[in-house]
Amino acid sequence: MRGTMMEFPLVLPTLLQRAGKILGDTEIVSYRPDKSSTRTTFLEFSRRARQLAQALAKLGVKSGDRVGCMMWNHSAHLEAFFGVPCSGAILHSLNLRLHPQEIAKIVNHAEDRFLIIDDVLLPLYEKFADDVKFEAVIVVPYGFASVPEGFLNYEEFLEEGRGESPYPRIDENDGAAMCFTSGTTGFSQGVIYTHRSLVLHSLSCAMVDCMALSHHDTVMPLAPMFHANAWGVPHTAVMVGSRLVFPGPNVEPEHVLDTMLREGVTIANAVPTVWINVLDALEKNAGRWKFERPLRVICGGTAPPVELMRRLDAHNIHILHLWGMTETSPLATLGRLRSRMREWPEEQQYEIRAKQGWPAPLIELRVMRPEGEVPWDGVTPGEVEVRGPWVAGEYYKAPDQAHKWTADGWFRTGDVGTIDSDGIMKLVDRAKDLVKSGGEWISSVDLENMLMGIPL
Amino acid sequence: MRGTMMEFPLVLPTLLQRAGKILGDTEIVSYRPDKSSTRTTFLEFSRRARQLAQALAKLGVKSGDRVGCMMWNHSAHLEAFFGVPCSGAILHSLNLRLHPQEIAKIVNHAEDRFLIIDDVLLPLYEKFADDVKFEAVIVVPYGFASVPEGFLNYEEFLEEGRGESPYPRIDENDGAAMCFTSGTTGFSQGVIYTHRSLVLHSLSCAMVDCMALSHHDTVMPLAPMFHANAWGVPHTAVMVGSRLVFPGPNVEPEHVLDTMLREGVTIANAVPTVWINVLDALEKNAGRWKFERPLRVICGGTAPPVELMRRLDAHNIHILHLWGMTETSPLATLGRLRSRMREWPEEQQYEIRAKQGWPAPLIELRVMRPEGEVPWDGVTPGEVEVRGPWVAGEYYKAPDQAHKWTADGWFRTGDVGTIDSDGIMKLVDRAKDLVKSGGEWISSVDLENMLMGIPL
Repeated sequence: MRGTMMEFPLVLPTLLQRAGKILGDTEIVSYRPDKSSTRTTFLEFSRRARQLAQALAKLGVKSGDRVGCMMWNHSAHLEAFFGVPCSGAILHSLNLRLHPQEIAKIVNHAEDRFLIIDDVLLPLYEKFADDVKFEAVIVVPYGFASVPEGFLNYEEFLEEGRGESPYPRIDENDGAAMCFTSGTTGFSQGVIYTHRSLVLHSLSCAMVDCMALSHHDTVMPLAPMFHANAWGVPHTAVMVGSRLVFPGPNVEPEHVLDTMLREGVTIANAVPTVWINVLDALEKNAGRWKFERPLRVICGGTAPPVELMRRLDAHNIHILHLWGMTETSPLATLGRLRSRMREWPEEQQYEIRAKQGWPAPLIELRVMRPEGEVPWDGVTPGEVEVRGPWVAGEYYKAPDQAHKWTADGWFRTGDVGTIDSDGIMKLVDRAKDLVKSGGEWISSVDLENMLMGIPL
Repeated sequence: MRGTMMEFPLVLPTLLQRAGKILGDTEIVSYRPDKSSTRTTFLEFSRRARQLAQALAKLGVKSGDRVGCMMWNHSAHLEAFFGVPCSGAILHSLNLRLHPQEIAKIVNHAEDRFLIIDDVLLPLYEKFADDVKFEAVIVVPYGFASVPEGFLNYEEFLEEGRGESPYPRIDENDGAAMCFTSGTTGFSQGVIYTHRSLVLHSLSCAMVDCMALSHHDTVMPLAPMFHANAWGVPHTAVMVGSRLVFPGPNVEPEHVLDTMLREGVTIANAVPTVWINVLDALEKNAGRWKFERPLRVICGGTAPPVELMRRLDAHNIHILHLWGMTETSPLATLGRLRSRMREWPEEQQYEIRAKQGWPAPLIELRVMRPEGEVPWDGVTPGEVEVRGPWVAGEYYKAPDQAHKWTADGWFRTGDVGTIDSDGIMKLVDRAKDLVKSGGEWISSVDLENMLMGIPL
């Protein structure tokens, strides 16, 4: 028997409207390539995102159409994060670090009808323009370059969307955003996040025991927004009203440190290499940057070495290790301590924090070998499988993908790991990161940890 | 176009399995009527809840059947919270404070097939037993009373459910739990929470800016579990792995204070009268109880007076004002400060904290008058309307209920309030709480605030 709750779909227009109506005074800071900054508010952002949705509708964008975007992390990218899906279309964030021919292949595979692009990225676009055909290319005046002939100016385009027509009816299982996997072996695969999966992932990121994103935080998304939506941080920030500081293309350690202190950043996310560079800058310039308030750092992509965590802790910068993939939205597990572990010796605590950790609520893990599930003993390795409401169930129009999912519906990550009696998972390695030396396979994780431990 | 995420329903078996597999060592403490305590773990709880589900299936309980329960707050009630819905049935928690004839009416209206009841509540059951017909009554040996002839013993009943058969297939919109409104005017109305609404409400309660329930908390649900599921606290605690301390029927202030200190409680919830009594005990016994760590208190039901919050703050007990109703699961709004308000003078901060506050993510509010929505000016009163994924869309088999929902799908609360430009809502009054004096209507909220402000 059905319950008596009202039907209320989990869709992005709900978050966007909330951002404008309830959280309108929240600030968004965006850095330009020249390191100057612009400031706007959630009120203005929500108005512009709505105009984008309405202008796209006028342009002829239909529900389910893919709209490509090639942008650095800044406020117009956030407008696209919400404006495109609120029009009923799917935002396809393109990885601008790929080879131009690879980008063209992905655009054609996704059948992107339109492109929104930063002016400063037009030179990259020119490298593959002949291999794709967008019906229109909308250029964001982000780096003060002028918009060339034959392109639409984003600011003028937004003017087309003035007014307040209601959003189109969106089903929560409709596609909202599309990302391709990094595809180190073979062709990248497309994943289409749904409105539902993005809303659930955002609720999850705002939980105390997950990322703990709060209205009182100032958040700096350093992970690119084309990498699994900057790990869900921008969507979550819009939902809870965190102040946002977008770095643009500037992720050099000195600039990052200057900006974090100047803007009062309380939480930031990036891969370990960024934090290794940050640590290096901190250690080479003793006393130049001082974090009076703790800075929380979400670190993923690969495992952060223990030595990195330890040394950053000394600077009041505290790494939280997140594990996930494009296929998992990405939040799957977190290297957080269990309650009783807070009494443990420091060394053991670091060991736990460096592991991939235990699954977020609603995410389920198991580790499999050909003969069945491995015991949760922390030593028996097998392939890590995952399922949950924000895990991909298939790739977009991919031939020969069936082997990536089990018959009973789990996603096979291709990663090899162990799981212990607390459900804490540790990757022994990613298959692709194994290093062969002297005829033996060496785990790159162990290697990296050892290297970081050598005194400089 | 649909996205490519896997189908993964939001259902309670997911939370129950997680509790056993990942959070098995988390402790549950239950106090008996004689104030002795029993201790168990999430592992044991999840095993027993599963056995309850399987024993109910053997007894013939079918999907959608209502199973009544009449219990104090303790671990067996938590087992029913999960075991009954995981069997596919609906747990109907009966309000044992109602008149026995009213209970009988509600049981008959809900067509409860079975009853789970604490042994110590059998005398209450006898008062309406002739007016209802359960197919079986299952008695929990909670207060050491013996189980009389003609009843099933809960412990023996659980034995029937040994083994591990898979849970039945549950749709996320299936009913999971049923509560009736307090019904101060006319007959109480039934609301059936769905698996989906309970899971979403739990995600929400665990968010930093909502209740902020964490794995590192020790939670004491003082609000009765038959009042809107103790405001979602038990479900959330099971999801995140908070240590649980159940008070049983003991809510006298001295016992509550003793227990909170002995068990290291970090968060508790109850109506203002409980905290008024607690404050009274604290002030009459200076130095007897000392909270070294802050105690967070979720306070709802009616608005907590400012003076209560101020005096409890002095004891390191910090009220968070929650507003909601049975029809809203109940979390709708929270009297939390906006970021910029943390710089405000203390007095103004208390004013904000005493208001009903701003809506949780996914909850939408508006204030209506016959001529349309009122401006968000903080002064124009109107009827508060609410909608969201955990708000009721209808009452269970109620005639003449259409006027409680608007044509466009909002729930009409019957409360009169204002809303300001931050979306912060303040109830001017509940219609039923208005006091008439000297020919004028006086707001009971203002009256209570004034009375609390008089020095004793």
